[in-house]
Amino acid sequence: MNAKRPQVVIIGAGFGGLNAARALAKLPVDVILIDRKNHHTFQPLLYQVAMAVLSPADIASPIRAIFRGQKNVKVFLGTVADFDLDKQTVKFEDTDVTVPYDYLIVAAGAGHAYFGHDEWASVAPGLKTIEDALEIRRRVLMAFEDAERRAATTGGHESLNFIIVGGGATGVELAGALADIARRVMRNDFRYIDPKQARVLLLEGGPTVLPAYPPDLSASAEKQLNDLGVEVRTHAIVTAVEPGFVRIGDEVLPAAVTLWAAGVGASSLGKHVGAKTDRAGRVVVANDLTVPGHRNVFVVGDLAAYADREGNPVPGVAPAAIQMGKFAAAMIKADLEREPRRTFHYLDKGSLATIGRSKAVGMVAGIHFSGFIAWLAWLFVHLMFLIGFRNRFFVMLQWAFTYFSYQGAARLITDKEQT
Amino acid sequence: MNAKRPQVVIIGAGFGGLNAARALAKLPVDVILIDRKNHHTFQPLLYQVAMAVLSPADIASPIRAIFRGQKNVKVFLGTVADFDLDKQTVKFEDTDVTVPYDYLIVAAGAGHAYFGHDEWASVAPGLKTIEDALEIRRRVLMAFEDAERRAATTGGHESLNFIIVGGGATGVELAGALADIARRVMRNDFRYIDPKQARVLLLEGGPTVLPAYPPDLSASAEKQLNDLGVEVRTHAIVTAVEPGFVRIGDEVLPAAVTLWAAGVGASSLGKHVGAKTDRAGRVVVANDLTVPGHRNVFVVGDLAAYADREGNPVPGVAPAAIQMGKFAAAMIKADLEREPRRTFHYLDKGSLATIGRSKAVGMVAGIHFSGFIAWLAWLFVHLMFLIGFRNRFFVMLQWAFTYFSYQGAARLITDKEQT
Repeated sequence: MNAKRPQVVIIGAGFGGLNAARALAKLPVDVILIDRKNHHTFQPLLYQVAMAVLSPADIASPIRAIFRGQKNVKVFLGTVADFDLDKQTVKFEDTDVTVPYDYLIVAAGAGHAYFGHDEWASVAPGLKTIEDALEIRRRVLMAFEDAERRAATTGGHESLNFIIVGGGATGVELAGALADIARRVMRNDFRYIDPKQARVLLLEGGPTVLPAYPPDLSASAEKQLNDLGVEVRTHAIVTAVEPGFVRIGDEVLPAAVTLWAAGVGASSLGKHVGAKTDRAGRVVVANDLTVPGHRNVFVVGDLAAYADREGNPVPGVAPAAIQMGKFAAAMIKADLEREPRRTFHYLDKGSLATIGRSKAVGMVAGIHFSGFIAWLAWLFVHLMFLIGFRNRFFVMLQWAFTYFSYQGAARLITDKEQT
Repeated sequence: MNAKRPQVVIIGAGFGGLNAARALAKLPVDVILIDRKNHHTFQPLLYQVAMAVLSPADIASPIRAIFRGQKNVKVFLGTVADFDLDKQTVKFEDTDVTVPYDYLIVAAGAGHAYFGHDEWASVAPGLKTIEDALEIRRRVLMAFEDAERRAATTGGHESLNFIIVGGGATGVELAGALADIARRVMRNDFRYIDPKQARVLLLEGGPTVLPAYPPDLSASAEKQLNDLGVEVRTHAIVTAVEPGFVRIGDEVLPAAVTLWAAGVGASSLGKHVGAKTDRAGRVVVANDLTVPGHRNVFVVGDLAAYADREGNPVPGVAPAAIQMGKFAAAMIKADLEREPRRTFHYLDKGSLATIGRSKAVGMVAGIHFSGFIAWLAWLFVHLMFLIGFRNRFFVMLQWAFTYFSYQGAARLITDKEQT
C-alpha cells in the first residue's frame, strides 16, 4: 500500500463487534479488536450453560481462533476505560498505553440493570457472561444439595423455590429449563427430598410474559410454562430482593435461589462517546449509526439506541447487533470508495423463545407458531448461528444426548467458593 | 431385613471411594458417600483440562448421577473434619450434625506438598482438582496474552518460559502438552509474538524423568520430550519459587508460569484415624487395609501406606486405589458372611505416561514400549476407564477433533479474577 492503511478499533467481540471485524476482512484497513474476555460468547445459549446442559466451551470460542485466518485483525485482551475523541485514541483501564484509531466501532453491549437497586445484584445474579452462567449453575445445584443435607440430618427442609424475576425471553427460557431439571433431570438423584416438589416461579411486572411478542404467542408461552409446572405471576412488581426471599408488595415469597432477568443496562462506555444517551444508558445514534458530530465513531448492538423509519426501536437482540456490525463495516467501505453514507434499516427476521426441552414460541415472516415445531425451528436457527463447526457439532450431540437421556451433562459445581 | 443393616460411611469419591461404594451395591448395607465436591474427577486426564483440550464436564461426573441406580447409596456434599473412633461417628466442618458408622472407609486422597514451603503454592499451582486445572489453564493462556499486549505496545516482552517442577508422570504430561500448545495450537493466533519462541523447562530433582519407570523408558521419555522442544533439567533441586522466577542453587530461571508436579501430601484426615503415618502423612495400614486396632476402619487409595509381601510400596496411582476400594468392600462382605479377612495384594497391570499428542512410554506385563504405539495404548486405556458412556464418547470426539485440527477446543479464560 502507498497510503497508510486506516486503523479501525472495535470495542467488544459480541455479535456486533465480531461481525464488524469479519466484514472488514477484505478491506485495506487494520483492525484492532479489544475485549475484556478472550472469548466470544454465544449469549442465546448461555442459559443452557447455567442449566448444566452445555459446557462453556460449547458456546464460546477464543477470539484469536476465530480471526486466525484474517490477517488484518489484531486481538487485544483488555478493559477500555475511555476515549479521546479529539486525539482519536482509546485508553485502557490498567495501563497508560493508548491505541490510536481512524475509525472507532463501540460494541460494548449491555449488562444487568437493577432499577436503582444495585444491592440486589449479589442476591439475584443475571445472565450475560460465562461466569454468570456458572454462578447460576452453582446456586441452583447447591440449593438441591443443601435441601438434601438438611432433610437427611433434620428431617425437613425449607421450601425449594426458584424465583425468576422478569418474563422476557431469558426469564421464560430459564424457567422452562429449571422446571425440566427439577422434574426430569434430578428425578432419581436424591434420597431424602423429592426434586419434583421444587417450585419454579416466574415473576413478570407487566400483564403478560414475552411482552415483545404478540398476545397469542404470549398466551401460548404462558400455557406451555404452566404445562411444565412453572407458576407464572404477572403484574408482579418486585419491591425487595433479599437472601432467602423476594417481596411483591406486602407478599413475601421464600426463595432458595433468585435469578434476575428483568432489566438490561447499557455498558458505561456509552457515556464516554460524548453523545445523548437514553434512560437505559444507550447512545442515541444517527441514521448511519455514528455518534452525531463524529462521522468516524460508530455505536452498534445493545449499546445503540436507534429507531427505524416507522419509529420502532431496534430491539436488543443478536440479529440486530449482527446487522449493525456489518453495516458499520459497510460504511467504512463506502468512505474508502468515496461512496455516500446510507441509512441503517433493521430487517426483522423473526423471533423464537424456547420453553423447556421440546416447547417454544416463534414468529417468522408474520406467521406465529408454537410447541414442538417452534422448538425444532429454534434448534435449527441456534445451531446455524453458532460460531465454528466444532461447536455446532458438539452442541448438537450434547442436545441429542440430553434430550434422550434426560441428563444434563455438565452438572458440575466447580466454583472456588464451594469447598 | 430383620437385623439393622450395617451403615458404611465412605469419605471421598475418588477412585478408591467410588469403587468401594460400587462394590457394596449388592450387599445388605447402607452406604453414605461423602465428598467435598459434587463430582468424581477422572484425575489422569486433568492435565488435558489444564491444557484446554477437554472441558471439565468431559472428565468429571456428578456423584449423584453415578449412583442414581444404586439405591443403597446416599451421597452427601460436605467437608469431614474429624472422626470419633469410639462412638463411631463422622464430624463435619461446618455443622454439629454427626453421621454414625458401622464401617468407615477413608479414601480422602492426597493434595500437593511443597516440602515445607507452603508459600510456593500460590506461585506454582499443582494439579489435583478441576479448579486447579482451570487456574493453570488461565495462567498459561494469560501468559501468551500478556506477552502479546506487551510486544504490541512496547515492542518487546519478557521471555515466555514455562517451568514445570517435578519430572514424574504429571510433569511429563504437562510439559509435552505445553510444548504442543506453543508450537502447534497457538501457531497462527498472535501477531506480535511467536508462540514457538516459548520455552518449556521440566525440572527434576533426581537423575531421570519418570523415576518410577525403568531406565530405558525414562531415557525414551526424555528423548521424546526433547523432540517436542522441552528442555529437561535433571539433578535440578529447586531452592526458591517466586513470582517471575525459579531458583536452582544460584541459578535464576525467569518464569512466566510455574507449575508444581513435584510432591504429593496425604489428606490431613490421615492424622485423625489414630494410627501411625509416614513422612508423606499417609496412614500405615494393616494387611487388610484397616487401621491397627480398628477392624472396622479402612484406609484406601493415596492416603494409605502399604507395602506388599516383597516390601514394595503400593504406588499412589488410580489402579491401586481402585483395587484397594474394591478390597475394602470385599472385607465388609467377608464379615457379613462370617468369612475370614484376607491380605491385600496389589496387581500391577502396567503404567503409561503420555508425552504430547502422539508420543508416550509404557510397560505392561514386563514389556516396554514407547512412541505412537504406547500413545494408542494410553488412549485406549484412558477411554476404557472414564466413568460413563457419554464421557467416553465425547472425550474420544474431542481428542479426534484436537488431533486433526491442532486446536485445543476449550481455550477459554473464565476465571472470575480475570476482568
